[in-house]
Amino acid sequence: MSAEFITDGGVTSPDGFRASGVNAGIKAEGLDLAVLISDEPATVAGVFTTNAFQAAPVQYCRKVVADGKARAVVVNSGCANACTGDEGIRANAAVVEGMAEVSGVAASEVLVCSTGTIGKPLPVSKIVAGLPEAVASAAASGGGAAARAIMTTDTVPKSAAVCVSLGGKRVTIGGMAKGAGMINPRLATMLAFMTTDATVATSDLKLALDQAVARSFNRITIDGDTSTNDTVLLLANGAAGGESLSPASADWPAFCEALESLACHLAQLIVKDGEGATRFVTVSVNGAQSGADAHRAAQCIANSPLCKTAWFGGDPNWGRIICALGYSGIPLDPDRVEIAFDDVCVVRQGGRNPDVDATALQAVLDQKVFEVRVDLHLGEGCDAVYTCDFSYDYVKINADYMT
Amino acid sequence: MSAEFITDGGVTSPDGFRASGVNAGIKAEGLDLAVLISDEPATVAGVFTTNAFQAAPVQYCRKVVADGKARAVVVNSGCANACTGDEGIRANAAVVEGMAEVSGVAASEVLVCSTGTIGKPLPVSKIVAGLPEAVASAAASGGGAAARAIMTTDTVPKSAAVCVSLGGKRVTIGGMAKGAGMINPRLATMLAFMTTDATVATSDLKLALDQAVARSFNRITIDGDTSTNDTVLLLANGAAGGESLSPASADWPAFCEALESLACHLAQLIVKDGEGATRFVTVSVNGAQSGADAHRAAQCIANSPLCKTAWFGGDPNWGRIICALGYSGIPLDPDRVEIAFDDVCVVRQGGRNPDVDATALQAVLDQKVFEVRVDLHLGEGCDAVYTCDFSYDYVKINADYMT
Repeated sequence: MSAEFITDGGVTSPDGFRASGVNAGIKAEGLDLAVLISDEPATVAGVFTTNAFQAAPVQYCRKVVADGKARAVVVNSGCANACTGDEGIRANAAVVEGMAEVSGVAASEVLVCSTGTIGKPLPVSKIVAGLPEAVASAAASGGGAAARAIMTTDTVPKSAAVCVSLGGKRVTIGGMAKGAGMINPRLATMLAFMTTDATVATSDLKLALDQAVARSFNRITIDGDTSTNDTVLLLANGAAGGESLSPASADWPAFCEALESLACHLAQLIVKDGEGATRFVTVSVNGAQSGADAHRAAQCIANSPLCKTAWFGGDPNWGRIICALGYSGIPLDPDRVEIAFDDVCVVRQGGRNPDVDATALQAVLDQKVFEVRVDLHLGEGCDAVYTCDFSYDYVKINADYMT
Repeated sequence: MSAEFITDGGVTSPDGFRASGVNAGIKAEGLDLAVLISDEPATVAGVFTTNAFQAAPVQYCRKVVADGKARAVVVNSGCANACTGDEGIRANAAVVEGMAEVSGVAASEVLVCSTGTIGKPLPVSKIVAGLPEAVASAAASGGGAAARAIMTTDTVPKSAAVCVSLGGKRVTIGGMAKGAGMINPRLATMLAFMTTDATVATSDLKLALDQAVARSFNRITIDGDTSTNDTVLLLANGAAGGESLSPASADWPAFCEALESLACHLAQLIVKDGEGATRFVTVSVNGAQSGADAHRAAQCIANSPLCKTAWFGGDPNWGRIICALGYSGIPLDPDRVEIAFDDVCVVRQGGRNPDVDATALQAVLDQKVFEVRVDLHLGEGCDAVYTCDFSYDYVKINADYMT
């Protein structure tokens, strides 16, 4: 049985999870502090940024996740606590201690994530002062507030949940994520939190998460910038009951598929809410010598400022796509390349398709959602990357987002 | 003796070169066809794009340059003759034949370059019809008109010349270049033409050109997009007289230095006229383990849309510089990194410099020209990349530049 999306679902859709979002005064206005608590200890898996500069909370979470157990997550927006040195490490520890004291969760089972401006000191006292209200208001109905509290330049909160029947038990997987700039898929590239009431051992959970991330968050890009704080966490608390799931279980593929469909949904929500985005573009590359080649080519096209500005202008400028493909460095035979916007072919055998239907082509480009389809006709390798266009508003948002 | 710049210099500043720029009706308005002719056969060296899609004129020029001799160059703007298949190859050959017939230069000594939109058929008949006027008007005073005729989205023509005294002879090196988008330094990345009246054998000329390009055109980036048509050509006709220059000559270093200073000047003119550019930013990286590492880090910073939009906003957002440095993939110790805008240090030991002078910092960012200085404190490797900011106008120009 395949996974079903739950209307208005989120991190608290699975049984045994509570969450909240409150205003702790970190940002000028709006919710800026979220907590997520599992009634019982959960297994946890995480994927973190590959950026050489790892924010204090990332350094800390890696250790907790290595132990494989967690019960609570504290997330603040408005400050990334990145490049803050020893002071940042101490600030993060103070948040952990504060959360342990207020919630009764052991400090070793508290995770912390931060997002916002790099290089500013974490406002520890505001966060610690906000924790009692956050913990007290944490509820099974609080997933939506938590999703709003983790937003920075995001314009909409990003929450979703799926459920799937496994061995007669109804298992739910929920999640929330935030973007909206410094997004590039060289590793999980933003904050995303997923929860499930399935029972899964830590090592198996990591296996499932790695696979889901490779096919979701690692397939999106907004601006090619890989952040210092990127984190994806998955907590499994077993509240749904049933046997522990593992790769040996008959239900394992169904669980992984449900997890992947949720992760893909959240990843695409991030792209759709990319800074200044007006278009959602899927760049798919087929016929490459390998999947890695296809991914690299799709990435080059998706990150090209010239392709992205053309899409903003609704311009079917395939020369820029060819150009990006050409400097991607992958093996290709220029004379075999085929390019289409949705199903309107613009390039055939490496050159202009003389029979292109200009009206149909413009109709594709006038859509808010379309696909750039590249076929290299060299092999079996294929991949797709999800991205957005480059608009005036991307420039405005990032020229004005002051340090 | 070091090289001296010549006021209003260009490709016709060296003795024995004539040039012109005419309107052949390729673009809606303005000059769009240039010719450059050497009175005597010249040695020639070239550097071409590494893009897998090589425009027809690039494929053709590689062969002529391999023979080492050339007398004439035809350049059209308004159409790149790229991704045009066999038709493009034939169109290019027709331009060569037309030029040979009109100018009397052997077809094997005619070079052709094209720049403009990718994928459109070359308007051969317009170009051939324009050649008689272009050849007839070619003059020693025509360097300026030629520089205007090769412009696409460039807002100013780019010409310069230097002279240097070598072995008692006054030798001149002149050049012209065009940008202004699809500029990324993985190889020579635009059109640039340099001429000299020095006598230099083909193999030595290539040596001098490769070295000059590595330190000039390969150090600039506007948008990270490497074009299909990038070409740098250097012609040496020996009109200044004197012994043939070679690496064994006492004057070789002075010649190379003069060539490099001209190439750097032209490269920087391209960046200053980058599409929508409002700032000229030098990103210098010192203390890397190798020069290649320093180059890669400088490139990552210079191509980051987040860094570029912050510069547009006059925002000293060093977190984005740290972020780009961190995902560049080069070896680094986060705790040793130092970053300054000109001489105002903002990051010390990988974190915020608490003693930063905010007024002095803003004064640096308010300038149209400034330097981002990164010191990794790891080794002796250093390099610098020249780039510009990312403005509303970059988006406007590239959203509106229709196929």
